[in-house]
Amino acid sequence: MDAATLGADLRELAAELGAHSVITEKLAAYANDATEHAGLIATPQAVLRPATVDEVRAVVRWAHERGISLIPRGGGSGFSGGAVPVQGGVVVDLERLDQVLSFDPEFWRMHVQAGVLTATVQRLARESGLYFPPDPGAAEQSQIGGNVATNAGGPHAFKYGVTGQWVTGIEAVVPPGEIVRYGGAVRKDVAAYDVMRLLIGSEGTLGIITAAWLRLIPAPEASLPLVAAYRDNASGCAAVQNLICSGVTPAAIEFLDSQALAASAGSFPQPLPGGAGFLVITEADGTAAEAQAAAADLREALVEDSVMLWAPSEPREIMALWRWRDGVSLAVAAQRGGKVSEDIAVPVDRLLDAIEGAHEIGSAHGLPVCNWGHAGDGNLHSTFMVDSDQEDELERAFAASHDLRKMAIGLAGTISGEHGIGWLKRGDLSLQLGAREFELHRQIKQLFDPRGIMNPGKKQ
Amino acid sequence: MDAATLGADLRELAAELGAHSVITEKLAAYANDATEHAGLIATPQAVLRPATVDEVRAVVRWAHERGISLIPRGGGSGFSGGAVPVQGGVVVDLERLDQVLSFDPEFWRMHVQAGVLTATVQRLARESGLYFPPDPGAAEQSQIGGNVATNAGGPHAFKYGVTGQWVTGIEAVVPPGEIVRYGGAVRKDVAAYDVMRLLIGSEGTLGIITAAWLRLIPAPEASLPLVAAYRDNASGCAAVQNLICSGVTPAAIEFLDSQALAASAGSFPQPLPGGAGFLVITEADGTAAEAQAAAADLREALVEDSVMLWAPSEPREIMALWRWRDGVSLAVAAQRGGKVSEDIAVPVDRLLDAIEGAHEIGSAHGLPVCNWGHAGDGNLHSTFMVDSDQEDELERAFAASHDLRKMAIGLAGTISGEHGIGWLKRGDLSLQLGAREFELHRQIKQLFDPRGIMNPGKKQ
Repeated sequence: MDAATLGADLRELAAELGAHSVITEKLAAYANDATEHAGLIATPQAVLRPATVDEVRAVVRWAHERGISLIPRGGGSGFSGGAVPVQGGVVVDLERLDQVLSFDPEFWRMHVQAGVLTATVQRLARESGLYFPPDPGAAEQSQIGGNVATNAGGPHAFKYGVTGQWVTGIEAVVPPGEIVRYGGAVRKDVAAYDVMRLLIGSEGTLGIITAAWLRLIPAPEASLPLVAAYRDNASGCAAVQNLICSGVTPAAIEFLDSQALAASAGSFPQPLPGGAGFLVITEADGTAAEAQAAAADLREALVEDSVMLWAPSEPREIMALWRWRDGVSLAVAAQRGGKVSEDIAVPVDRLLDAIEGAHEIGSAHGLPVCNWGHAGDGNLHSTFMVDSDQEDELERAFAASHDLRKMAIGLAGTISGEHGIGWLKRGDLSLQLGAREFELHRQIKQLFDPRGIMNPGKKQ
Repeated sequence: MDAATLGADLRELAAELGAHSVITEKLAAYANDATEHAGLIATPQAVLRPATVDEVRAVVRWAHERGISLIPRGGGSGFSGGAVPVQGGVVVDLERLDQVLSFDPEFWRMHVQAGVLTATVQRLARESGLYFPPDPGAAEQSQIGGNVATNAGGPHAFKYGVTGQWVTGIEAVVPPGEIVRYGGAVRKDVAAYDVMRLLIGSEGTLGIITAAWLRLIPAPEASLPLVAAYRDNASGCAAVQNLICSGVTPAAIEFLDSQALAASAGSFPQPLPGGAGFLVITEADGTAAEAQAAAADLREALVEDSVMLWAPSEPREIMALWRWRDGVSLAVAAQRGGKVSEDIAVPVDRLLDAIEGAHEIGSAHGLPVCNWGHAGDGNLHSTFMVDSDQEDELERAFAASHDLRKMAIGLAGTISGEHGIGWLKRGDLSLQLGAREFELHRQIKQLFDPRGIMNPGKKQ
């Protein structure tokens, strides 16, 4: 896109939306997301900041007519470069769509615009004795629209499911610039094809999600984590399987392998025994009595072969544990200055195979590797740690990631359990999908976005 | 389709599949589903009984090449005529796809072909201490493929969600005759657009679902129902709202209004007080201790204004209660010989409006009406009772149903919470969807099935 032409186009849009909604200076803040390596920085040609759904409609119509690429952006906490304008284009910042449109605690529901922080949804629910279970990291930064657009997961997805399971309605703007609405406050709807669930997780490539109806549930009275350490991957994964067989439904089953633990152990809120080479974090929740009974069952399931069991019970300790867990990704990044983090998922009985496979792949590419993530969902954040100043290491990490994804597919898994394809995994979707499935994927994109203006290059 | 031409086509198919897979006699058993009125009986031109997914692929390819309509059929327990060949064509009976492909109780999952009975899935799970929560009626008749194709609900959807929430993978055959597979044993997958959830609930109009991966959970140790009766709709609906505000998550919140109760009270497993004009059935589940504690909370939430509280505790009594609940539909049908049953859903705070509105619509059309269903999900089986020998009554019931659906849309609800559009609600989808949403609906159909062979006339 020619800068002079775009300048004229932007002036037209500014005349419609107001000059403060069209930003052409200080664009560096929109050049990256949480994918921390150098290959994924790209300054947009402009940033649009619509304040209403009608303004989003005007933006999409404007872009569709002119063939201008739009890159929707939520909180910028994504890990696959989905919000980075790698092929140029104009970023659409949803931050100003920040209204809680309605909150009916007595009916367990909330209607929010896309730019509302995930933490705000969680806090409002809690203040009314309710619970919004999805808990991807960076809740204070990520916006609910971005969470819906990526169908974000998190530790508690094991019991409660991913973000999409808590969405009963959606509003979006699709090319050529029209508002579509599906579902709403109603909890069941099988009338039309489930286009809502096609938009959920579509990473801004089919349209821009502008609002969502969320379902809530009564908050569990108590959430009691239990941490268990094991000597190695094999005994740790065996413990995870014991846990799943125990007859209890834990709220979460997290893990760290020895390398992830080594990177993050320094800030663990409790002394760790020397022999700890695998950590399992699980949690029992429910009423106080239920959580205590379940916690005892979890302990029984985890005790075999453990080298440590720790059950924080004080709210302060519990918060410290989850804050530490949330920081694992940063701790790993700090090891060598950079990392390429993946999010493959495999059937849970293949967890050990996936961990061992990731280490073999790291060795083959000469890169240190670590794994952590959501063991109960078979979802691994396998990570290749790099010195990001070394172009060569980054290239090797990309090659290793590609091998890792192929391994996941070979284990009957997926190349993405949480982060989405974004830009980082481009080209690998066709490895996972069959020919007809891939053709349908492309045809759906074509159907919604015939001019290819919506987040081009992503999710493909 | 000309009978002689079809005969030649069928002979070609029989040569490929074997003669026993192509049935051209005794077709009356395939002429209707559980939609009990005369307008929905239509004998197919033939019935195909493929025994493998490759045979299903051969069937779809054969039909696509020749422009022959296919009507997929599960257990035939649908309530919207989805499996009835109203516009002619060939029924595809999935009954022979009856294999449990794998069952891994230790990993909470099962892989089944489409023709496996829902009751078989439920029984296998239970025998291993697990639970498959979806419980649409007629589990002994309905097949899991049909349940997935309609995204079936049921009483326990209030706590556990509808069928689709328990599906992690799907296999289907789509035109022009290709097998597609999405997901699998893996519990999380955000790689591609969620075409799996587009196929779930598509009522056989996009393709034929041939197998599904199902997710299971540890079975609750105890399920304790509580039945409460109220004088009228207003006090009954107020009780439902009290229940939702109580801070407990009931497993189910069912209701019957006085007319539904009058039709079915004769077989209620307990004496009912004279003043009972609204029934609420709820259930607490969990470990024995959890269920008992929750049941006490439910009782406290329901006691106000009740004229009866009954808490069956013996397994025999509990089974009798749910068997009776399952039979309400038949009891209502027996009142006047026929009925036209709907399945609108509204936001739960509009439940009373919907019940009262249904009665007003019945009066306007001169038809007795009753309502029962899934109160917690705002999902009403509003039913117009007819003498089905009177053509005029049936016509009036159809007109009343149309008004009822318009009312549901006006209450921010949906024309179908459970049964789907099928043939019965044809034409009304465009009332619920906006213009662009309806266009996308038709475009998706066109994309999957360009020749319009898949269950034509349905879901539109």
